[in-house]
Amino acid sequence: MQKVKLVEVGLRDGLQNESRSLPTEVKVTIANLLIDAGVKELEVTSFVHPKWVPQLADAAELANSLPRRPDVCCRALVPNRKGLERALDTNIDEFAVFLSASETHNRKNINKGIRETYPVLEEVVREATAKGKRVRGYVSTVFGCPYEGEVPLSNTAEIVNRLLEMGVYEISLGDTIGVATPRQVKEKLKALTREVPADRLAGHFHDTRGTALVNAYVCLEQGITTLDSAFGGLGGCPYAPGAAGNVATEDLVYMLEGMGVETGIDLEALCEAGWLAEKQLGKKLPSKVLQSVAAKRRKEGSR
Amino acid sequence: MQKVKLVEVGLRDGLQNESRSLPTEVKVTIANLLIDAGVKELEVTSFVHPKWVPQLADAAELANSLPRRPDVCCRALVPNRKGLERALDTNIDEFAVFLSASETHNRKNINKGIRETYPVLEEVVREATAKGKRVRGYVSTVFGCPYEGEVPLSNTAEIVNRLLEMGVYEISLGDTIGVATPRQVKEKLKALTREVPADRLAGHFHDTRGTALVNAYVCLEQGITTLDSAFGGLGGCPYAPGAAGNVATEDLVYMLEGMGVETGIDLEALCEAGWLAEKQLGKKLPSKVLQSVAAKRRKEGSR
Repeated sequence: MQKVKLVEVGLRDGLQNESRSLPTEVKVTIANLLIDAGVKELEVTSFVHPKWVPQLADAAELANSLPRRPDVCCRALVPNRKGLERALDTNIDEFAVFLSASETHNRKNINKGIRETYPVLEEVVREATAKGKRVRGYVSTVFGCPYEGEVPLSNTAEIVNRLLEMGVYEISLGDTIGVATPRQVKEKLKALTREVPADRLAGHFHDTRGTALVNAYVCLEQGITTLDSAFGGLGGCPYAPGAAGNVATEDLVYMLEGMGVETGIDLEALCEAGWLAEKQLGKKLPSKVLQSVAAKRRKEGSR
Repeated sequence: MQKVKLVEVGLRDGLQNESRSLPTEVKVTIANLLIDAGVKELEVTSFVHPKWVPQLADAAELANSLPRRPDVCCRALVPNRKGLERALDTNIDEFAVFLSASETHNRKNINKGIRETYPVLEEVVREATAKGKRVRGYVSTVFGCPYEGEVPLSNTAEIVNRLLEMGVYEISLGDTIGVATPRQVKEKLKALTREVPADRLAGHFHDTRGTALVNAYVCLEQGITTLDSAFGGLGGCPYAPGAAGNVATEDLVYMLEGMGVETGIDLEALCEAGWLAEKQLGKKLPSKVLQSVAAKRRKEGSR
């Protein structure tokens, strides 16, 4: 089994979809717990307008309160040049841009068509690169859209190629609403990796219908070894009712370690981040491993 | 993709682990909802002593209240000849026997060593067969035991061979405490199917660590196309604290249909069984599809 790179997106993709906002100091504590557990790459916030995502309104303050370690990369989502400029004033290590493979979802999400979005992202990538910063890309609704249903793979292929041309170093393919099944993932990735090197792609699966982990597994089988996940299984999609969180980092790590992949993550330490988030959000998080470790600890009387 | 046979075990494996007992008429309604949704094979109860599983104390009454349809098979678990005799007085179509691949788990579960269990099961199979009834077998803790940890595959192989010799027609391999990972499933099944025909085996996965669906997927990849599941993801294991339910039938069906496998099950109709159980048990069930269909219905104002 090849090496697998895990990208922790809970603080951004997870928290932006929670109705309750967490205080900045709690987010900093969570980031520290994640890093202590062995997480090396974290997406920590988003510099979109606070009107749209009030839960991440503290982006700049958070970015400047994070631990700075040479072995850890903290990333922020930026929607446009304005967001990038706010982010460049902070200690954030790198950036991510996003658009949707579905025209309707892209319009609902960022109020622009896909083609009109390219120059906006191009400007971000150019400016970030000029400042010596790397940019990752997200393509959402690759496996299905709440408005358009099935999304042709050609949309994704075109966007991926455009992003690579702009200088984006890695592109995360999102099952934003959690509709993908293993066959679809296998077929789409098989086709896509004929055009694009697998090491430029990542899998980003939501668990709305319970298939996130199996889709991540199929991703690995197709040679795509970078996977996004959220601690606790936090997350969702504000434009897709009932959409669930990202695949849980804990469950993914459990599966990977059981497959002989060294993730470098200490599972019990990782659970501390999820338990803190549960306390702060006032609800149970969906990660099965988080719940089973908690049950074990309760039985041992230590929690 | 080959045909997949689904075995619905929620009314037995699910309910035996719920603290609240459901009234017989509710179980009958659930069985009818499952059958109306297209379920063809159901394990409905267990004729163990009511002292051990009070939730299934109504086994005989339930068995005689179920719809009798030539295209539907209703099965009951029987621990021994006494259980079988109680079951033979009812309308139950066929039976299942069980033992554990781990000596300690077998002793805790049925108060006998593995070898002492064989003659008990032999008697059951002989008598059932004489009455023209088929017997299925369960081997639990195949992928790990709460007491012994890793369980050697040779234990399982020996038990499977013994059960086949007795005349058991199909053997369900249980990840009773939900510890299995895809590599382990792949390796164990690859080894086992060198000795035993794949069409005599079934996969039975619990979701304690979120891996049940991916393990079911790996099972299919290994040519084992009979899968046990529980509506709503009901279930657990009374001897394994924190152990979660079976893989949810809804999530499994969603995955299979998306893979082009015709299950014959109407997913929205199937959800009715889970929602009724949620109401009666006073809690949400873990199936992701159940929750996402409910969210969609709430949004449409129909639930």
